[in-house]
Parts: sequence; C-alpha cells; structure tokens
Amino acid sequence: MRSTQIQVQDHPSGVVGPEHFRQVEVDLPDPGPGQVLVRNTWTSVDPGLRLRLRRHAPAGYFTAFPLGQPMDGILTVGEVVASRAEGFAEGDTVWHSFGWRSHAIVDATADAMNGVGTLRVLDTRDTPPQWYLGPLGAMGLTAYSGLAVANALDGGERVWVSAAAGAVGALATQIAVQLGHRVIASAGTAAKVAWLREVGVEAAVDYRTEPIGEALARVAPDGIDVYFDNVGGDHLEAALDAMRMFGRVAMCGSVSDYESTPSGPSNLFLVTAKHLTLSGFRGSLHFDLLEEMQAKVGGWLREGKIHYQESVYDGLDQAPAALADMLAGLTVGKTLVRL
Amino acid sequence: MRSTQIQVQDHPSGVVGPEHFRQVEVDLPDPGPGQVLVRNTWTSVDPGLRLRLRRHAPAGYFTAFPLGQPMDGILTVGEVVASRAEGFAEGDTVWHSFGWRSHAIVDATADAMNGVGTLRVLDTRDTPPQWYLGPLGAMGLTAYSGLAVANALDGGERVWVSAAAGAVGALATQIAVQLGHRVIASAGTAAKVAWLREVGVEAAVDYRTEPIGEALARVAPDGIDVYFDNVGGDHLEAALDAMRMFGRVAMCGSVSDYESTPSGPSNLFLVTAKHLTLSGFRGSLHFDLLEEMQAKVGGWLREGKIHYQESVYDGLDQAPAALADMLAGLTVGKTLVRL
Repeated sequence: MRSTQIQVQDHPSGVVGPEHFRQVEVDLPDPGPGQVLVRNTWTSVDPGLRLRLRRHAPAGYFTAFPLGQPMDGILTVGEVVASRAEGFAEGDTVWHSFGWRSHAIVDATADAMNGVGTLRVLDTRDTPPQWYLGPLGAMGLTAYSGLAVANALDGGERVWVSAAAGAVGALATQIAVQLGHRVIASAGTAAKVAWLREVGVEAAVDYRTEPIGEALARVAPDGIDVYFDNVGGDHLEAALDAMRMFGRVAMCGSVSDYESTPSGPSNLFLVTAKHLTLSGFRGSLHFDLLEEMQAKVGGWLREGKIHYQESVYDGLDQAPAALADMLAGLTVGKTLVRL
Repeated sequence: MRSTQIQVQDHPSGVVGPEHFRQVEVDLPDPGPGQVLVRNTWTSVDPGLRLRLRRHAPAGYFTAFPLGQPMDGILTVGEVVASRAEGFAEGDTVWHSFGWRSHAIVDATADAMNGVGTLRVLDTRDTPPQWYLGPLGAMGLTAYSGLAVANALDGGERVWVSAAAGAVGALATQIAVQLGHRVIASAGTAAKVAWLREVGVEAAVDYRTEPIGEALARVAPDGIDVYFDNVGGDHLEAALDAMRMFGRVAMCGSVSDYESTPSGPSNLFLVTAKHLTLSGFRGSLHFDLLEEMQAKVGGWLREGKIHYQESVYDGLDQAPAALADMLAGLTVGKTLVRL
C-alpha cells in the first residue's frame, strides 16, 4: 500500500508558505495484530500547528515537528480499509491522529493526544463525518473546555470572545450564547461581524474599524466577567482593562503571537488588583469533557441552534495552502482538507 | 482631642519621597454611639500603597487616595481610649483601618477592607501586638491566600517565591516550607540570600549576581510547580519558562511595576501551551481564611518555626521615609511605624 504524505521540509522563520512542505509517496506495511489500515477522508488544519513548525519549539508541552515527516497529532477522519484490531471493522468511520497523509496504519490501543486522538469509531448516522474534526472534535472540546476552565458553564454573565468568527471562536461564541450568557463577539472584517450578529450575541464589534478597548467600553460599559482569548496582545490588554472584579480569562492561544515574539500586556498588575484568573488550557487535555461536550453541542447542532461554517480545500496537495490561508485570516470557520 | 495625621500632599509621578506628604493636626469629635476612640500605637507600611498614590488609580478595585487626607485602608494597631460600642472596652488592643494618624474615631460595625480591616479586638496574651500588622494580619493573609489560590496548601511540590526576603515573601516562603514544599527563594542582596538559607529552603538565589532564568534552571532543572510572584516583569517571564505542565502562579503584586508601566512577559503563550493558571489575588479579599491562617501561622511563630523580621521606624513623622525606603528595597521584612 502506498500513502501520499505532506512532509515538513523546512521550519518557517516567518510566514508559512507552500515552500515549507513537500508531497511524497511512502510504502505502508500491512496492518499487524491490533492495527488497522485507514483511508483518510478528511484532515484538519489547526492554528496550533504553527507553534510546532518552529525550529525550536517552546519548552513545555509542544514538540517541534521533525523535518522529513508528516505532521501528526492532528485529528483526521477516515474509513477502515482493513482491521486486525478488535472493535474496528472494514467500513467503520473512525478518527485518529495521523493526518496530512492519504492512508495510515493505526495502532488501535496506542494513546494519542492524551486520549482525544486515540483511534475511535464515530457515529455518523445523523452527523456528517467532518463535524468530528470541528464542533464535535478538538475544536468543540477546545471551545467547551475553555468555558469550563473559566468557570463559565452556568451562564448569566457577560462573556467576550475574540476572533469570534474563527474555528474555535465561532463555536465558543455560540456555546456561550446557548449557555445563557450575554456575549460580546469581535472579529476583523465587516462580513464576519455581520455573520456574528445573526447568532444571538449581545453585540459584535470590528476591531479594525474601532480600537478594541473603545469598542468594549461602548458595548459593555459595566465591564466583562469572562474573556475567551483567541488573540492575545492588544486584545488581552483591553480585556484586563474591561474586566470586572473576579473576572476570568480563558487563554486559548494567540494566533497573532505564533509568528512573532510580542510583548505581553502592560497592565498585568490588574490581574492582582481585580483578583482575576488567567487560565491557559488545551482542549486535548480535557478528554474527560469529550462526551459531555459531544452530547450538548451535537444536540444544538442538530436542532440548528449552532451554525457551523467550513472552509474546505479539496485534495491533500492543497493542505499547505489551506494552512497558510488560515494563518493569514483568509478562511472562515473550520479549515478542512477533503481527500 | 487632637490627632496628628500624615496627609497626601501630591501624587508622585515617579519615585515617592517625603515631599509628597505633610504632617498636620486635626480636631477629632468625641466618639458617638457605636464608635470608639483609638490611640494608635503601630501603623503599617505596605507596597500596595504605591498603586493608590497615583493621580489616576488603575480601573478596578483600587481608588486613588485623595489629596489633603491621610491614607486609609491600612491596618493599624492601637488601644481603646474611650468606647461607646458594645464589645470594646477602654484598654483593649484592637486593629482597624485608619492608619497614618495618631488617633482615630472608628465606627465599630462599619465594614472595612472587606471585613479584614473592621474594628477587631486582638488577643495579645502570647502575641506582640505588632505581629497583627505582619504575619497575623494582612501580610499573613496575603501569603496564605496566595498559596491557597495557587492550590498549594497541601505541600509536596516545588514552589518558587520571589522577593522572598520582603514582608510577604518571607512569610510565603516559610509557610510553604512548613506546608512541606521544596522551596526556591530569590532575593537581591547577599545578606537576604544568606538569611533565606537559614529558613529551610531547598535553594536561595541572588538575581543580581545571576540572571534569574539561569538560576532557576540551575537549582530546579526539573522545573517548578508553583510561583508566588512578588516581582513581575523578568521574574514572571522566567517563571513561565520554568513552569511544569499544570503549573500555577499566584500574582501577589509587582513592586517593580508600581512606578512604571512595563511590558508584560513575551512568553505568555506558554500559559496556554503548559496549561498554566495565573491567579491574581489580594489578601483583603480572603477574610474567610483569616482565622485558619492565624491559627496555623500563629502556632508556627510561637514554636519558633517561622522567623519574622521587622524594620521599625519610630514616630509618625518617619512614616513617609519608611514608605520611600521600603519601595527602594532598603528595608528588611515587615516595615512598621511605632507611634
């Protein structure tokens, strides 16, 4: 069996482009005992990949992707072609963590992504399979666990979500609305803001036409209780200014920071002054919340209460362009590659 | 009755000096129903005062001290001279929140400092009264509640305390040791470091002779679990680098930040990457922990397990110099004024 892969060819020092990848074919062995062969049908394009494309990944959880290998640790959906593992049969739709390639041999019991990326059969009776790469997968888990770490699952507060038309942001925004919060959503184009106005938020603002701090003061003069941060930098600084006492920030990641080394906010003393809590989190470390999230979000999706947008690129060879476009802010909603 | 007061005369824009204060005498009325007249004997000099000496105090909890008034919201110990309030008798030793003046009329039931600064009779049978301005007062509550918000009351982890020879730092360091943590302590003079080596820490480092990040990597190569931050700036940045997964930072305040507007750490993305939690806190918002803290810390003090240093200035007229010296790092341990 031959598998087509997109391998990392070079670690970008600045903007990611197609020149940092190459497409190659490799031989796959037959599946051994406990393994399955999967033909991938959808693969995921995530902002977090950028951090791991550094030559020297930051200390801590992340490891850099090695050159000459496809990226892994990315949820991918496929169909089982051949199985030698109990519980998996030919034709099953599954997810696993060996993305950016056409076929993969997957060890059914090997832990991946702290349980989240371990091989798993998906129920696709009422659910398009690619939803499991978005609202019912890592993205949904990220949005939901961010609200969980900010102690914001009970509703009734004012919540600001930045990059609210992005993959995670759109979901965090709508989950917060469904949970009964008053939600402020920010984005960077008129089209995104117009879309956000249709999903039940209290206010949607465009940070490119109005300084974000002024926009917040205008739409939430009493301040905010929770900030779901997808941006960092000046947005985080504005949030600290706008926070009410005992506010919480869920720090989901800062796309704007991944390609540079910015200074942090100059008003961090407010964290002490207002008794704030800043919680960094990664959805992949909240496997315990996966089924709770899939039940709630799956229900809202099927009832049409949550709108889910996709930017789909066709063909594995388009994956690098999809990543570059997403990092440049040119995609809407979840960025996917259909194989 | 005449009361001598130190009033705020000007809001310093940079370094605080005696020229920003003036000493005046004012007339006090007789105590009314529910009030007591207190002759103050000890008053407290706290780093947090600097934030409230700004012309425009930061949004949120703090309010700026008005010109032409003595500073309040500062724990002060005194003796009841006359009482018209139930539960308070002439000769009682009490604390309240009207410091930087010789005498005060205090309403016995008025809430001050979220309960912490409300008029309260102190047990001085085994306890020097000024301990209630230090280890058994706001300072002890700050140290203890910082470890509480960092979920670090159970011991068994590696804890770094910065400014560890300062008022709060010395106490946080020793409480952490008594709770069974392995403690790294940092300070900025050889004398402070030498003192810290005598209180049971795993390591004490001098950030003026070795970059703090290198010192941490040397003494805690496996990283730290908890950081009790009294410094901010480069120390917080070094902590984020050194943190292990799921680490917690208790953000107590940043003396170095109070006289300038620094940039925040450039590595805040590690908060997300390592699933860190940064908890700002103020001891005065943890009145619920006061009695638990006084029982534990009082016991350790009387057993000689916790060492407590004071820098005492004699006479109310020395209060501005005491504040300036403390902000310049020239005092050791708790800074006090004896009236």
